[in-house]
Amino acid sequence: MTTTTREIHLAARPNGWPTQENFALVTTDLPAPAAGQVLVRNTHMSVDPYMRPRMNDVKSYVPPFQVGEPLDGAAIGKVVESTVDNLAVGDLVLHRLGWREHALLDAAEARRIEPIDGVDVSHYLGVLGTTGLTAYVGLLDIARFKAGDTVFVSGAAGAVGSVAGQIARLRGAKRVVGSAGSAAKVAHLTKKLGFDAAFNYRDGPVADGLTAAAPDGIDVYFDNVGGDQLEAAIGALHDHGRVAMCGSIAQYNESTPPPGPRNLALAVGKRLTLRGFIVIDHFGRTSDMVREVGGWLASGELVAEETFVDGLDNAVAGFLGMLRGENTGKMVIRL
Amino acid sequence: MTTTTREIHLAARPNGWPTQENFALVTTDLPAPAAGQVLVRNTHMSVDPYMRPRMNDVKSYVPPFQVGEPLDGAAIGKVVESTVDNLAVGDLVLHRLGWREHALLDAAEARRIEPIDGVDVSHYLGVLGTTGLTAYVGLLDIARFKAGDTVFVSGAAGAVGSVAGQIARLRGAKRVVGSAGSAAKVAHLTKKLGFDAAFNYRDGPVADGLTAAAPDGIDVYFDNVGGDQLEAAIGALHDHGRVAMCGSIAQYNESTPPPGPRNLALAVGKRLTLRGFIVIDHFGRTSDMVREVGGWLASGELVAEETFVDGLDNAVAGFLGMLRGENTGKMVIRL
Repeated sequence: MTTTTREIHLAARPNGWPTQENFALVTTDLPAPAAGQVLVRNTHMSVDPYMRPRMNDVKSYVPPFQVGEPLDGAAIGKVVESTVDNLAVGDLVLHRLGWREHALLDAAEARRIEPIDGVDVSHYLGVLGTTGLTAYVGLLDIARFKAGDTVFVSGAAGAVGSVAGQIARLRGAKRVVGSAGSAAKVAHLTKKLGFDAAFNYRDGPVADGLTAAAPDGIDVYFDNVGGDQLEAAIGALHDHGRVAMCGSIAQYNESTPPPGPRNLALAVGKRLTLRGFIVIDHFGRTSDMVREVGGWLASGELVAEETFVDGLDNAVAGFLGMLRGENTGKMVIRL
Repeated sequence: MTTTTREIHLAARPNGWPTQENFALVTTDLPAPAAGQVLVRNTHMSVDPYMRPRMNDVKSYVPPFQVGEPLDGAAIGKVVESTVDNLAVGDLVLHRLGWREHALLDAAEARRIEPIDGVDVSHYLGVLGTTGLTAYVGLLDIARFKAGDTVFVSGAAGAVGSVAGQIARLRGAKRVVGSAGSAAKVAHLTKKLGFDAAFNYRDGPVADGLTAAAPDGIDVYFDNVGGDQLEAAIGALHDHGRVAMCGSIAQYNESTPPPGPRNLALAVGKRLTLRGFIVIDHFGRTSDMVREVGGWLASGELVAEETFVDGLDNAVAGFLGMLRGENTGKMVIRL
């Protein structure tokens, strides 16, 4: 039996900031699952910064989206038809075919997830999924955070940054400071997420804001934005400081790259380590992260904010809003 | 009994490139060694890039030189008076009081060195000293070179670069390429030092020269210069590539820093690691280095070029020539 459903296609490649015209909502029919497949009714889908560069026709660590084809990304859903023994109708699964109301996929591509008491299942798209894993691996494995470090997180009100800063706090940081793009977000960081200090990077030179927030300098910089915040961090880092370089939202939409940090030569005398990473290399740490972060989430020690947008019709608007920084914490589309 | 001797003082701090006027040759009297001291007649002294930033009044990992005071740096000499049991008249020692014909110092500050058969003792100022240790540690410990890697060394005809490239070759690199500032140096790299390819960074865009030399990309970049060579290397590095950031000659004399690499954001998708280092953190590796590099030197598998300048009267000219890149390999002043 076919299933009539809807999905979002890439209609045209964006040049700079994307708009609604780059996307199309398409109605389509899915066949019944073949042997080894399952049909899933998606309940939540993720919109993430990394999706923007996939809209360019550039080889990267994930293949580009194709014009006229559906987008994809992380999603959660309930199995509605199954041809395999290990997934039953009603099971909750995490998979990669977001941007659509139904997903037809090989059972091997779906991972069954177990709800945690007191924790919304949507968190598996964020703090218990790739977002949380990015923060966890970036802070602990890439920047080699240790208790007693002072940590600076840029984009700290964002999905990854807000988790990275809280993990640092819960793991015994001496001081955790963050930057964000509005007074409301700055207040959120210190009042809700337990940051020791925060500043609005739009209020003046970033180096001044960082010096005020961390007058004794920093040991670790979790970089979500690049550009002048990276330059300020290099200036503030202590000897043997470490930078985890995570995807840069600020740079995804630039036609010409921003200038590199003019003070990078300080990395020699300060013995700095700057290390880029991609979370897909680190999925082996997922169970460690779910155990540790899931515990903090259930106890209320870690706050994972979510911004919800309802309906596939509004998914593009939610994605564009996320790129503009309108979300606090993880942006989730409920379907 | 006093010893009348000569030494070089910093007469005035240079602004930009130093000149003869920044230095003074001063005659002075040294007292007889006190208990625990030795008097050394210096035979060789080192001039090194790191001495230039020490002429600025800037706190760094080594204290600045003081105006009106003698310069210092690595030197080799023969003990001519001793008050201690473990150093005898005639012993060869390595110590830190260069830029003078005699050195009066605590015996604990002098390290006795053993000549190696067939290896000029002056090499203890270079390939068997801090220079060689910088190359050894930078390549093996900082850039984590492994057999099969393709390695790019900038400033490859310089003291550190020429050793780094050869260690890579002798440790089983797939391909070793280097950049230098003249056709003669480029020829030297491929004809004498065993580099697989080399290019003159003044001949055109560095990225083009690097692509021609290493068309399949690189795994390790040993950075002696920063600037556009670092940018070209970031473009050429494979996934999981590593950069050892060593002191940058090009930047020591700049009043304004050069632009940072515009493509640094590639470090995320490529999972690059850039790591600055200072050799003084790594003296514990000296005996490993002397054993391995000393063996290659004695067997002739590793070529360590030296450029000699004779006499303390010519030491400043030798230093300035080294800053301008007139040396091939290690610049040594014979006293």
